[in-house]
Amino acid sequence: MQKEKLLMTPGPTMIPPRVLEVMGRQIIHHRTKEFEDVLDGLQEDLKFVFQTKNPVLMFASSGTGAMESAIVNMFSPGDKVLVVSVGAFGDRFAEIAKVFGLDVQKLAVNWGETVNVSEIEDILNKDVNKEIKAVLMTHNETSTGVTNDVEAVGKILKGTERLLIVDAISSLGGLDLQTDNWGVDVVITGSQKALMGPPGLAFVSVSDKAWEAYERSTLPKFYWDYKKFKKAILKETSENPPYTPAITLITAQAEALKMMKEEGLQNVFERHKKLALATQAGVRALGLELLPKQEDSSYIITAVKAPEGIDVEKIRKIMNLKYDIMITGGQKHLKGKIFRIGHCGYVNKFDLVKTFAALEYAFDEVGYNVEAGASVAAVQKALK
Amino acid sequence: MQKEKLLMTPGPTMIPPRVLEVMGRQIIHHRTKEFEDVLDGLQEDLKFVFQTKNPVLMFASSGTGAMESAIVNMFSPGDKVLVVSVGAFGDRFAEIAKVFGLDVQKLAVNWGETVNVSEIEDILNKDVNKEIKAVLMTHNETSTGVTNDVEAVGKILKGTERLLIVDAISSLGGLDLQTDNWGVDVVITGSQKALMGPPGLAFVSVSDKAWEAYERSTLPKFYWDYKKFKKAILKETSENPPYTPAITLITAQAEALKMMKEEGLQNVFERHKKLALATQAGVRALGLELLPKQEDSSYIITAVKAPEGIDVEKIRKIMNLKYDIMITGGQKHLKGKIFRIGHCGYVNKFDLVKTFAALEYAFDEVGYNVEAGASVAAVQKALK
Repeated sequence: MQKEKLLMTPGPTMIPPRVLEVMGRQIIHHRTKEFEDVLDGLQEDLKFVFQTKNPVLMFASSGTGAMESAIVNMFSPGDKVLVVSVGAFGDRFAEIAKVFGLDVQKLAVNWGETVNVSEIEDILNKDVNKEIKAVLMTHNETSTGVTNDVEAVGKILKGTERLLIVDAISSLGGLDLQTDNWGVDVVITGSQKALMGPPGLAFVSVSDKAWEAYERSTLPKFYWDYKKFKKAILKETSENPPYTPAITLITAQAEALKMMKEEGLQNVFERHKKLALATQAGVRALGLELLPKQEDSSYIITAVKAPEGIDVEKIRKIMNLKYDIMITGGQKHLKGKIFRIGHCGYVNKFDLVKTFAALEYAFDEVGYNVEAGASVAAVQKALK
Repeated sequence: MQKEKLLMTPGPTMIPPRVLEVMGRQIIHHRTKEFEDVLDGLQEDLKFVFQTKNPVLMFASSGTGAMESAIVNMFSPGDKVLVVSVGAFGDRFAEIAKVFGLDVQKLAVNWGETVNVSEIEDILNKDVNKEIKAVLMTHNETSTGVTNDVEAVGKILKGTERLLIVDAISSLGGLDLQTDNWGVDVVITGSQKALMGPPGLAFVSVSDKAWEAYERSTLPKFYWDYKKFKKAILKETSENPPYTPAITLITAQAEALKMMKEEGLQNVFERHKKLALATQAGVRALGLELLPKQEDSSYIITAVKAPEGIDVEKIRKIMNLKYDIMITGGQKHLKGKIFRIGHCGYVNKFDLVKTFAALEYAFDEVGYNVEAGASVAAVQKALK
């Protein structure tokens, strides 16, 4: 008997039934009091999850579009930036910056590692002419299951003219990210991960320092133009938002953020942490190893090394087709070498128990020796 | 007793219950056979409604984003283009082209008129050095309720090196637009109008001639990069689509296009035409005048002049709050001077009958003398 597919993936993540109910409603028009009220409420709740006092802009786009928006709104051709890359999404940020003519200095690490913050400090200290205008980094790198220390990088940049721009697409709402307190100038995220909405919306917070950079930026922009969206939020124009918005995704996102407020932001973070630590315990009980060092391992997604001689894609296939649970494989050169378990957004302890029960069956089926119930017991114990 | 709000607006338009049902389903992952099948089916159906053999690209974005995409994929800074503007959306196309450094020659008409195609011909004939690389135009201008003759412009450009780029956001799927036959190189549309989907998706068809222009284009592009999407459609990459797509909007759009295929494309066009002619009959019976000449008046949306001394915004308010029917007002300098009735997408004859019944009440309430039932009878007769 088949049941609903359980997505233990880094995004899209499962959508709560309350949010699905909103998705299934007839469309409302965007130039109405009713929709304006939705936007106003969503704006307040976005500030809450972004931990910022600044307006949070919203685009009908994938997260990648919002990454592009940060480049074209903050910079001019030839501007030098330091891009910290610890995986596929950091690489993407560097690629976008290059396409738009920025002078990209890339600080990369081996996949599975986090950045050593003192290396960033060294690079910036050596940049005596202050040519580096900004540091671009990924908060949580889903391709390798690691989390960078954004707070520490914020401390280095605080009080300087340099911007800190953070891709928090897979982290915001799941990991603590104190936008204002930590001095993050631009925070980018998407609807389809910890925020529990369907994909298709992206959100961006912009600090006062970033608005100054906006005024200097000469890269052409129209669809992504931050100022139009800010004016709309501040009600300095009747065109709010500037173009026909993705109405249904917005009403759905508003509902999902209400749920996060009801649970409480610290409780949401705590839940993600507990699920991650339980996943690590389950992985150990299976006799497997994490890809990253344990202290670097993400609370959003756990990357696990495939045991020697085991076809991890076969494991994933069994999980998906036989047990209706999707986990993720490796990207780029890690394909076939790792698998990844997402525990982000609308996930609770029983989803994890079920996942490890199925993992035990799947490993057993491919001839990898597992002690029945051991990993499930480890998960249960960790989540007691 | 209140009933569901009826949107007689140019977009978003009403969503069929079959499509809403799909919207309310739990999310599926985008890297699955199941979603690949949805994409493949949608691709075929998009070609069908676009009347093209070329792949139709798809973006998570508003229609405006897809307009920007055409500029950055087809041109280089300094390229000269002729932008035909007959209203607010033609103006927007010119504005986007200017922002990206194109040399824009604008051919504008009074609002409410269509372009005189011989004027385009004259301009192109005078351009003996062939500096003008493309003609950009709006197919159906929702701000003024007129439809331009794209076929005629296509004939002028056929066999030349110049591109024809058409904003068909409010027309495609409601008005006949023979992309390949008429020689339209880039056709842009959105999900939320005649295609009966929720807003948040945009679609673009690209001709062989346009792909040659793509190769010459030097404007920087990443999110909008057409080649990445083409490769995905042609399955030359495993990343299909390149970024996390707006999954739910896509599955919903696939369902809506199935409905259009079931009805038959010519039948859909015929329905829009009949509804438009019936609307015109109803307007006449109310003693009102169209904004455009009758032969220019759109089959998607009818723009009607407000009678002297009648507050059209009050009419709209009564329609909306008392009778749960949304019609639209005028944009920019036409605000307060016209109202617009959309009859686009999921609309049938009884929606129109209801709309005119309510219009009669509303006009009566503001002191404009209407003969009870006259406009409804005219609509009914026209739709017999």
